[in-house]
Amino acid sequence: MRDFLPAQMILRRRVMETFREVFERHGFEPIETPVLEYFETLTGNLDDEKLIYHFQDHGGREVGLRFDLTVPLARFVALHQNELTFPFKRYHIAPVWRADRPQRGRFREFWQCDADIVGSASMLADADVVSVVVECLEAIEIGEFQVRINHRKLLEAIARYAGVDEDRAGGVYRSIDKLDKIGAEGVIAELRESGVFDKSAGAIVELVGATGSPSELLSQVAATIGDTPGAADALKDLSELFDALAASGVPEERYRFDLSLARGMGYYTGPVYEAVHKEVSIGSLAGAGRYDGLVGRFSKQELPATGISLGIERIFEVIQEQGRQVDATSVTQVLVTVFDQEHSGESLRLATELRRAGIRTEVYLEPRRNMGRQFAYADAKGIPLAAVLGPDEIERGVVAIKDLRTQEQTEHPREEVAEVVLRMTSAAE
Amino acid sequence: MRDFLPAQMILRRRVMETFREVFERHGFEPIETPVLEYFETLTGNLDDEKLIYHFQDHGGREVGLRFDLTVPLARFVALHQNELTFPFKRYHIAPVWRADRPQRGRFREFWQCDADIVGSASMLADADVVSVVVECLEAIEIGEFQVRINHRKLLEAIARYAGVDEDRAGGVYRSIDKLDKIGAEGVIAELRESGVFDKSAGAIVELVGATGSPSELLSQVAATIGDTPGAADALKDLSELFDALAASGVPEERYRFDLSLARGMGYYTGPVYEAVHKEVSIGSLAGAGRYDGLVGRFSKQELPATGISLGIERIFEVIQEQGRQVDATSVTQVLVTVFDQEHSGESLRLATELRRAGIRTEVYLEPRRNMGRQFAYADAKGIPLAAVLGPDEIERGVVAIKDLRTQEQTEHPREEVAEVVLRMTSAAE
Repeated sequence: MRDFLPAQMILRRRVMETFREVFERHGFEPIETPVLEYFETLTGNLDDEKLIYHFQDHGGREVGLRFDLTVPLARFVALHQNELTFPFKRYHIAPVWRADRPQRGRFREFWQCDADIVGSASMLADADVVSVVVECLEAIEIGEFQVRINHRKLLEAIARYAGVDEDRAGGVYRSIDKLDKIGAEGVIAELRESGVFDKSAGAIVELVGATGSPSELLSQVAATIGDTPGAADALKDLSELFDALAASGVPEERYRFDLSLARGMGYYTGPVYEAVHKEVSIGSLAGAGRYDGLVGRFSKQELPATGISLGIERIFEVIQEQGRQVDATSVTQVLVTVFDQEHSGESLRLATELRRAGIRTEVYLEPRRNMGRQFAYADAKGIPLAAVLGPDEIERGVVAIKDLRTQEQTEHPREEVAEVVLRMTSAAE
Repeated sequence: MRDFLPAQMILRRRVMETFREVFERHGFEPIETPVLEYFETLTGNLDDEKLIYHFQDHGGREVGLRFDLTVPLARFVALHQNELTFPFKRYHIAPVWRADRPQRGRFREFWQCDADIVGSASMLADADVVSVVVECLEAIEIGEFQVRINHRKLLEAIARYAGVDEDRAGGVYRSIDKLDKIGAEGVIAELRESGVFDKSAGAIVELVGATGSPSELLSQVAATIGDTPGAADALKDLSELFDALAASGVPEERYRFDLSLARGMGYYTGPVYEAVHKEVSIGSLAGAGRYDGLVGRFSKQELPATGISLGIERIFEVIQEQGRQVDATSVTQVLVTVFDQEHSGESLRLATELRRAGIRTEVYLEPRRNMGRQFAYADAKGIPLAAVLGPDEIERGVVAIKDLRTQEQTEHPREEVAEVVLRMTSAAE
């Protein structure tokens, strides 16, 4: 588990606030749920319960730290059903915990940024969350990425078409999902081991490896397995989804129909999505899909749901890998120096004036230290400007403004200082 | 532990963002620490360890959920000492946990908003955090409040003056602190029980109950116990603090020197503060003080520190008590209706245009539902405007805008819709 220092936090906050703006621009609203949930709420959806940190609370109930934001959402919706308006669109940006072995881009405490829609079975809802992913990743200028889109029912149809029993279908999905990694022959070999006939294995690999525009692929899939039970529903969903994405103005190059996408099949029931970076190989930047059955686990009423989860920690890894510099390592825009205790009042008065003009202002807090120490402090923090006023400046009614980036120093009448600082800080941004 | 629904979250976020702006305007920078700390880090500062939720992690180490943000700060500063620039000003807005019995304004999971300065012993630092409290509470227009200010060393001097042994001084502080509740006679009775002579008890109560401007009280205290060891240092600190508050333009009516303020005496070593509401009786809205010894618990180097903690949950209780209405219960500014699946593309296109103009826009996600249902949805959520486009509007290249607050409906050429909506939403704000 990690601490975040100010320079990291300034970057993290900027990214998360950007995501928040995109969520709100699409009408997703904030909610908050407790970090601790009853253990029985959390179990049942994670493959490995060992990943949950849990303990007995002081009343003897077993409680655990949430491992994602989706299960708490389902519990929340079931509990507050009568207070909510459906379709219910919420976002939630918060930490989650997994007692996992830490690795690159994976931590025991990590943040998730989720946007979900509960109460609509329409593909307009799925298009909404996919647009949100694309806008979020474009807004932070992460570079080339693409959202892979598939449909769980299509994978089921493929398994059926291949003559695989339902209870062994999971193996087929997992093999298909490895197409990128182990290639066509690797997948065919695995499918054979799962009991798929040679001919079917070849047909499956050809199908899931096909490339083309969504409409081309939809036709090809329809021609191959269109008559297999379940396939027609999936194809209709996907056709509506792709139409809605086009109408919403999502650029074509930002998504593709990818039949090899399986994704953790836990609770998904419809379309599934996964955003991948095209240059940085780090796994998915965002992912999720439709999970129409999850709310029903906590409520008598089934409620369809779909959503996405942005993998904020991996996104930060990509940003670091790209070596992108943060333009500000300090929130402070100007440091007001203090000549000595006796003259500190003037520095305080000036700082208050600057703050009232909306400028983020610090007064140096150790009046006994010389100017050199005070400038070194501003430099170390990355504060761009210093407002200097000693007995001489105070007497003459002026303030010296030092630009610590250029070392230039200029003198200004006291009453013009706020305006000068505003001009100099906005010029730097 | 509680869930927060969108309308509550919109209010909570607004208040917390306001505090964040004030913190940053004073140059406090964000940090983040993990929710889980080693149990041994957490213990030693809370009177009652039973209040800490803790358990063994999967590696067998005892870990606990943080119960405040100050102890993690001290651990953070000690650990990252070489990466930080001092004086180090940080803020932290995050939840903490106490296994306490819930009561009004008190919960097991609750949020704290803390701003602290580590590495300055100057009273300018204390004035900075007191100004921040005042600006925060003024910015949210919470009504009449005042920051009570005292000095721990003054309380010690009072106990010494009264001839009380150091190990029994805690009882004297606690009695003094009750002046508001049990009155002068009650305090005198308690002091006698603590072994204070009648005459001294009377003098103490007269002293701590005195009212007047900070400078009047400073003189009075100096005249009474000025020669008692420790008193002179405390009076010098307070005199510098009040001067700095005046120079910073903090309104006089927002703070007072209050010798009866004791505050949880745990780790405080200098000035202590507590903001109280003058009309709503709910305990302190914010509080804290100087704690020069805490960082030294985790580091070889002692580092002076001071800070404040805004009691966000109590502040929300006051806002609710005041019955203040939130002006928006939805983040969404306009709902674009959908006539049917066939015409949904036009609705999606319009929504994208509106979003690109910076308008928070939702498309109704259930194309099979009639207009009445769609308007009812907007009403229930508190969305102020609906943009209506059916086959007729689409053909004529217009959009009807319905103001759901007035029920007025107007029609506008498609290309002017964004501008009209922007005008109507800004008029409402």
